[in-house]
Amino acid sequence: MNLSNAIFIPGPTNLPERIRRAIDLPTVDHRSPNFASDLKAIFRQVQNILKTDNGQIFIFPATGTGGWEAAIANTLSRGDRVLACRHGVFSEKWIHLCQHFGLEVDVIECDWRGPANPDLIEAKLRSDPRGEIKAVLVTHNETATGVRSDISAVRQAIDSAGHSAMLFVDGVSSIASMDFEMDTWGVDIAVAGSQKGFMLPAGLAILGVSQKAIASGATADLPRFFFDFRQMMQTTSSGGFPYTPPMQLLAGLNESCKILLEEGLDAVASRHFFIAEGVRRAADAWNLEVCAHDRSFASDTVTTIFVPEGRDSNQLTLHLHQKYQMSFGVGLGQFAGQVFRIGHLGQLSIPNMLAGLATIEMAMRDLDYPINAGVGVAAAQEWYRIPISVKPAAGLLSECGVISDE
Amino acid sequence: MNLSNAIFIPGPTNLPERIRRAIDLPTVDHRSPNFASDLKAIFRQVQNILKTDNGQIFIFPATGTGGWEAAIANTLSRGDRVLACRHGVFSEKWIHLCQHFGLEVDVIECDWRGPANPDLIEAKLRSDPRGEIKAVLVTHNETATGVRSDISAVRQAIDSAGHSAMLFVDGVSSIASMDFEMDTWGVDIAVAGSQKGFMLPAGLAILGVSQKAIASGATADLPRFFFDFRQMMQTTSSGGFPYTPPMQLLAGLNESCKILLEEGLDAVASRHFFIAEGVRRAADAWNLEVCAHDRSFASDTVTTIFVPEGRDSNQLTLHLHQKYQMSFGVGLGQFAGQVFRIGHLGQLSIPNMLAGLATIEMAMRDLDYPINAGVGVAAAQEWYRIPISVKPAAGLLSECGVISDE
Amino acid sequence: MNLSNAIFIPGPTNLPERIRRAIDLPTVDHRSPNFASDLKAIFRQVQNILKTDNGQIFIFPATGTGGWEAAIANTLSRGDRVLACRHGVFSEKWIHLCQHFGLEVDVIECDWRGPANPDLIEAKLRSDPRGEIKAVLVTHNETATGVRSDISAVRQAIDSAGHSAMLFVDGVSSIASMDFEMDTWGVDIAVAGSQKGFMLPAGLAILGVSQKAIASGATADLPRFFFDFRQMMQTTSSGGFPYTPPMQLLAGLNESCKILLEEGLDAVASRHFFIAEGVRRAADAWNLEVCAHDRSFASDTVTTIFVPEGRDSNQLTLHLHQKYQMSFGVGLGQFAGQVFRIGHLGQLSIPNMLAGLATIEMAMRDLDYPINAGVGVAAAQEWYRIPISVKPAAGLLSECGVISDE
Amino acid sequence: MNLSNAIFIPGPTNLPERIRRAIDLPTVDHRSPNFASDLKAIFRQVQNILKTDNGQIFIFPATGTGGWEAAIANTLSRGDRVLACRHGVFSEKWIHLCQHFGLEVDVIECDWRGPANPDLIEAKLRSDPRGEIKAVLVTHNETATGVRSDISAVRQAIDSAGHSAMLFVDGVSSIASMDFEMDTWGVDIAVAGSQKGFMLPAGLAILGVSQKAIASGATADLPRFFFDFRQMMQTTSSGGFPYTPPMQLLAGLNESCKILLEEGLDAVASRHFFIAEGVRRAADAWNLEVCAHDRSFASDTVTTIFVPEGRDSNQLTLHLHQKYQMSFGVGLGQFAGQVFRIGHLGQLSIPNMLAGLATIEMAMRDLDYPINAGVGVAAAQEWYRIPISVKPAAGLLSECGVISDE
Repeated sequence: MNLSNAIFIPGPTNLPERIRRAIDLPTVDHRSPNFASDLKAIFRQVQNILKTDNGQIFIFPATGTGGWEAAIANTLSRGDRVLACRHGVFSEKWIHLCQHFGLEVDVIECDWRGPANPDLIEAKLRSDPRGEIKAVLVTHNETATGVRSDISAVRQAIDSAGHSAMLFVDGVSSIASMDFEMDTWGVDIAVAGSQKGFMLPAGLAILGVSQKAIASGATADLPRFFFDFRQMMQTTSSGGFPYTPPMQLLAGLNESCKILLEEGLDAVASRHFFIAEGVRRAADAWNLEVCAHDRSFASDTVTTIFVPEGRDSNQLTLHLHQKYQMSFGVGLGQFAGQVFRIGHLGQLSIPNMLAGLATIEMAMRDLDYPINAGVGVAAAQEWYRIPISVKPAAGLLSECGVISDE
Repeated sequence: MNLSNAIFIPGPTNLPERIRRAIDLPTVDHRSPNFASDLKAIFRQVQNILKTDNGQIFIFPATGTGGWEAAIANTLSRGDRVLACRHGVFSEKWIHLCQHFGLEVDVIECDWRGPANPDLIEAKLRSDPRGEIKAVLVTHNETATGVRSDISAVRQAIDSAGHSAMLFVDGVSSIASMDFEMDTWGVDIAVAGSQKGFMLPAGLAILGVSQKAIASGATADLPRFFFDFRQMMQTTSSGGFPYTPPMQLLAGLNESCKILLEEGLDAVASRHFFIAEGVRRAADAWNLEVCAHDRSFASDTVTTIFVPEGRDSNQLTLHLHQKYQMSFGVGLGQFAGQVFRIGHLGQLSIPNMLAGLATIEMAMRDLDYPINAGVGVAAAQEWYRIPISVKPAAGLLSECGVISDE
Repeated sequence: MNLSNAIFIPGPTNLPERIRRAIDLPTVDHRSPNFASDLKAIFRQVQNILKTDNGQIFIFPATGTGGWEAAIANTLSRGDRVLACRHGVFSEKWIHLCQHFGLEVDVIECDWRGPANPDLIEAKLRSDPRGEIKAVLVTHNETATGVRSDISAVRQAIDSAGHSAMLFVDGVSSIASMDFEMDTWGVDIAVAGSQKGFMLPAGLAILGVSQKAIASGATADLPRFFFDFRQMMQTTSSGGFPYTPPMQLLAGLNESCKILLEEGLDAVASRHFFIAEGVRRAADAWNLEVCAHDRSFASDTVTTIFVPEGRDSNQLTLHLHQKYQMSFGVGLGQFAGQVFRIGHLGQLSIPNMLAGLATIEMAMRDLDYPINAGVGVAAAQEWYRIPISVKPAAGLLSECGVISDE
Repeated sequence: MNLSNAIFIPGPTNLPERIRRAIDLPTVDHRSPNFASDLKAIFRQVQNILKTDNGQIFIFPATGTGGWEAAIANTLSRGDRVLACRHGVFSEKWIHLCQHFGLEVDVIECDWRGPANPDLIEAKLRSDPRGEIKAVLVTHNETATGVRSDISAVRQAIDSAGHSAMLFVDGVSSIASMDFEMDTWGVDIAVAGSQKGFMLPAGLAILGVSQKAIASGATADLPRFFFDFRQMMQTTSSGGFPYTPPMQLLAGLNESCKILLEEGLDAVASRHFFIAEGVRRAADAWNLEVCAHDRSFASDTVTTIFVPEGRDSNQLTLHLHQKYQMSFGVGLGQFAGQVFRIGHLGQLSIPNMLAGLATIEMAMRDLDYPINAGVGVAAAQEWYRIPISVKPAAGLLSECGVISDE
């Protein structure tokens, strides 16, 4: 019997009913005139979600990795230098991608339990007076560690250094869930994926690209065809698509944008903070360490939690899967076996989140963790039931009155 | 945003994915030869679920109330006497129906916190030496009170009295969830509805009818046409239906029977006991009274719980609905305002059930009930996480090893 | 492989995508406040579709047959006389139902290839000066013969006779497809079913009941409980339902009404005339006789066509089903084996209809009917492709410019 | 009102009900052990469909264009020479892609109304004694022209020339519809897309890759990351995926493969020939020219038809779309405005196909084409209704007894 528990991996998220229905679309003729106007409407909504006025939107039938590739292949040339922080497996993977494309990557090694380091970025840029570094790559939310980086601070670092490098941001697990301000933060390329905050299945790489980044394509010599910005701009501007468009996911994206904009981006971010804070309080009640050293950088879409020393976190996640049919994220990279990750982005009701916490508790007690039944749940309950105005730790949200809006 | 919490009313139940898909059927020609064989297969499966070899199955596009009506209209005549226990609003409603049809109902008033009383039934039947009482009506599971009656004991009472009355059982909220043995218990008519243990939307009245009850139709003079057993038997036996059949719900019923029989009826009953027992333990931890005086008669499909004296249970259920978007059953009849009801039949995972209990706790704390956060959840967790062999209170199930089977 | 041909039985109809989605609804709490307002909105829309201001709407989880039963059980008493025309198996069945309930039915035998006869009705009523006849029963559209009756003329007959009998109309296969005017025609009870013009699965009996008919219930002594108007009015007026409501079909009905009212009832009727006329022209091109003697009474929802003498129409429909997986209606009653029926109500595009006609042609040629390939299709094509203003035979529709509206 | 006509573009195809359901999947944990075994089963089935024993299967969340890119980026180096025939817009596009990646393309210009020319290929290869040409690129089925190429003959040409070039085949609009034999024909890379014969939405590039082609990757220096074979092989062989896999489309592909293999690849090909031949006979009856000069190379998935001289084919397709809500393919490239294309691949019943042909006829008569109503339909009907054994023009299929299997 399908017990249909919510899923607690940090993406893909649980699919809201409205989105499943939007995706479950009979075949549509993509050369009909309707497609052109639909696509324009989707682009406009994605602009709103990225908070950009003039950023050009690109949507490829791919994943976030494809988005990373599109970002660099359309703007850079073989041998170009880029600067990137490594503090988790996803920031690391983007570095590898650049290396595969023949770029020279200046890697700043950061603490995996902290954010990208703006000071080191500034220092590095200052040491490049000739402006050889073409782009700074930052992972907004490291899905592996549950640590958020401060993109605004990175922008300030670049500006303080007086450097002209473009700012490329991996927002795959932050955009459409946490606060993201493409124009205000001066982001040149923002990369998102359909299966995180947009609450869709995987299959779309979504990018916001500044005019500066587009202009850089004129001289970029890295080869691209499937991910070519020029071909995509040309066909979509005349109502077409360079190849058969993924109509079902585009219909889903349209619905997703509507859902998000109906709720309001601030409310969406508040809701994610609110849910996440309950999880962090449960972790505290369990006496387990949250990965983010500085709680003000803790992610609102995924919480990475250390198991007690000497324990294997894979045993816990496997037990949760086998006995309780519930999925959580495993530890990745240098934290493999040491942490488990609770994804809490997209559609998740408070009762769903409590079900997840209660089930972790049962599993930990099954495995003789030194934890009393109900303690984490109780800590979360007490947080969740008081929807008074709360000041999120990150200082980004002025108020959190979410329950009444749900 | 649809947060899609599970629903905790005692029917209709949450719809399993497999059943939603089976129901979502394009139009089918009901005069095609396939229909005849499909219907036969459904009848056979329903026989298995009712545990009857020769009981004739009837399925009407109606609800359980229609099933009550079909039961009496096809077997009795104006002025006939029937015997019935009143111990909840649903047993009461069947009595009213009989009265509307001009039957004389001998009502045995029972404690609403207990089951139908076999001793009083036996005594009443002994006082009818001429056999004027044509049928004994019993509600197997009073959905209003969460009290199960012992049908086997009622059968023994009838037999001890040496009486020839037929035994009609309302099994709407028990069949396909709790143990039900039509042949062993000598049930002449069993009435079920699609929206309870069968986990379908409302819209089907499902009956098992003994040959004795069918034979009684020859002299029954109550009028019937839509609910006529004769017309239904005649048309379905030749592969038809007396009117347009509800194909979608029949397809759903077919799937539902498959799901139930794949799991096994004993496992289904064990699972319901297992889930229910966790709820009862939570109630105990909350120091709230379960309606059923005798725990061995507590229902495994719905738990009726008294709020502390002086409190209005409607305030609690309304608060749960408005603040947490979660639905529970309200008090009915003489218990209106005094109890709330937790439906836990059909598809409900352990995490789902814990979500329900955690949410009740939050609501009770919001309303200043003298309850600590997490205590009910903890009691349930400790029960749910130990899937060792357990002896259900009802004595019906020898073992309960459900988690590994799910 | 499911080739998903359209279905051409006269109900249930093909399910429009929008309706399938509306029906595919997760479980909803029927005791929540939303239900009351939703139900009221549905009632209002059904009133619009029946064209009644004060007619009370009743919706039972049943079929049209249940609607027939509800109509008489709530208004009449054992031994009452009713007047009915018999000119097809469905008018005949309603007569049987009345007889099962102990009513005395004055049956007017009419030509099965024509409508109910207003002159004979008037004559019969004139011969009842004491007003013993309580109701006149008319089948608006005989689904077996494809003949429409003129309800307005029947009303005039009753009025001319100066008789007080109520007018009960079976509109199961006409309402929501063909013109129906409850108030203008003075209909006291209109019976509809979900699976015809409303394009839903079977499972709802839908009635419009005049205040006069409701008032007649005060003295009506036929037993009723499941179909009781009083209980239904009482519970629905206070936001409830007498038993678990069929939420999924109600949601579907809501959507269906929206679809119909968005298109406009006149446009709906025009569209049905337009599609039907193409079918009749195909029949003419095939040199086959349409059942309706007088073409102005030909139904716009189903066309009944005689096969050439000496042929068995069941062979044709079986061949269509087995070789081409396409369903058409068989002959019923005295026309069994002599006619086949093409249902063309609800959602059917012109291409779909042409597919049906082309397939019949192939089947007829397979069986050596004296017919050339393409002739029926060509006749229909030439009709369908000219969406100029057309005067429907029935004189009900002033114009038919449907294609541009689709 | 959604009239839900079938769609007649040459992909994406109409979505079979079974596939829509398979795709409409709740979120699944892609790191669970089930994923690994599911993926293996899919790979095996795709191997069966490509008819390859040792060809490695790759599935990327992309489109056929991504498949073209993956094919060359994983096997070739900047400056490598490849040989390709240009005889339609899709063969042309692959050539452009190669040029974007810095390959030197030897283009053989072929007649757009004919296939790739094996003789010219052989001649070209013979003129390359040093083996500088690394790969021959052939489009199996030019979707723009409806002309099939003979891949077996191309293989023979390569072998006759004694050349070691790899053979890359674009089978996007042929694979899973028409006969395709990867191993027998010595295909090194076969590229397919989800939205054609697999009857899925666009979103998957599916490749079969020979061991020789994989080995060539060791020295290939074109950059790739998203489309990297090595990373894909490494992760999938250990049960993972290099990024979030498109679970819904993979579930759909699994179902699609089941459907195809249940029917049998020969039956699938026969069915496509059978449907296509009816379309060609209709074109003949209309006195319109089919694009393929040599009927034995006419595609069985799409038929490209010339409108009479002096007419604009775009007017016809636009009229079909606007008046009849039916979609057909437009002319592309040098045939823009001169041809329309009827896609007839994937799920299409005979009645559906006749509906398409009947509708084209109406549109052509609306536009005063010199055509009689019904003539094309009649020609197709007479073909479709005789399911005797037929010898397909292409000589590939021994028998065509498809109707009885459908």
